Amino acid sequence: MNLRDYIRDIPDYPKPGIMFFDITPILKSPKALQYAVDGLAERFSGCGASKIVAAEARGFLFGTPLAVKMGIGFAPVRKPGKLPYKNRSVTYDLEYGTDTLCMHEDAIDPGDKVLIIDDLLATGGTAVGMVQLVRETGADIVGSGFVVELGFLDGVKTMQNAGVEPTCLLTID
Amino acid sequence: MNLRDYIRDIPDYPKPGIMFFDITPILKSPKALQYAVDGLAERFSGCGASKIVAAEARGFLFGTPLAVKMGIGFAPVRKPGKLPYKNRSVTYDLEYGTDTLCMHEDAIDPGDKVLIIDDLLATGGTAVGMVQLVRETGADIVGSGFVVELGFLDGVKTMQNAGVEPTCLLTID
Repeated sequence: MNLRDYIRDIPDYPKPGIMFFDITPILKSPKALQYAVDGLAERFSGCGASKIVAAEARGFLFGTPLAVKMGIGFAPVRKPGKLPYKNRSVTYDLEYGTDTLCMHEDAIDPGDKVLIIDDLLATGGTAVGMVQLVRETGADIVGSGFVVELGFLDGVKTMQNAGVEPTCLLTID
Repeated sequence: MNLRDYIRDIPDYPKPGIMFFDITPILKSPKALQYAVDGLAERFSGCGASKIVAAEARGFLFGTPLAVKMGIGFAPVRKPGKLPYKNRSVTYDLEYGTDTLCMHEDAIDPGDKVLIIDDLLATGGTAVGMVQLVRETGADIVGSGFVVELGFLDGVKTMQNAGVEPTCLLTID
């Protein structure tokens, strides 16, 4: 299977000049969805992960099936004001401005071995934000996985600079 | 396993006088997460569903693992402005004001048999919004499943009035 066949290119979204890569055709196809989740599970088998961390909303789409497949727990990362219990948060830089990610204080235990998951690795801003959030808990990060990587945005290098090697099922150059 | 042990009661959230039922402890526990997904899968085995529909963000947490478990596709429902391709949308009434849900025009095919999934059935407003959205596509709804139901909010009756029988793993009265 070529996952590229299940990614729809949408020009000028969310603004003119930007090409958006829509992963919803992967979700629509039972085979592609299974292939993506199985592919991530295979690459991380034996890594000893005890918890998946993924950010709303699209990270949830692949993060929880992978947690169920691997038989481990899941810690949701959300925007401010969305998690009802005590939060820890991180604010990180975007091209213009900043963004904030939150996680429940007790979502990760200090001894956890964490796998960071998202649908798409673009510039790596959100992924590095999750790395910071996880490190504050004292837990180890044993890997990060993405269904798609946009090679031209250098997210892999950005993640490597943050000390985490990303694993991507598909690279779009 | 009693799923109630994995639901955290948070008083005065999101506003004074409201008790919020936090399902994140289910996600944190590999056993509880597996139990919830397996429980829904068992109840819907043999229903002939070809697609799961669930709304962001918390619906995604149980909707995609269930789709993977059942070997069927997944159609995400999101807030306006979040889905990049052509949208169909429905606006429905809340206690104060309205809310709008969107789905990609091609997320569901006319012959699909749809299962509507969410983490929690409260008043049923969002769930009935999803029912309307799915019916517009011409697809059949073969069931709806929720991890938790708040019995005192009559969401079951609201769903029954919309012609869909909800299945809930746990009722909190």
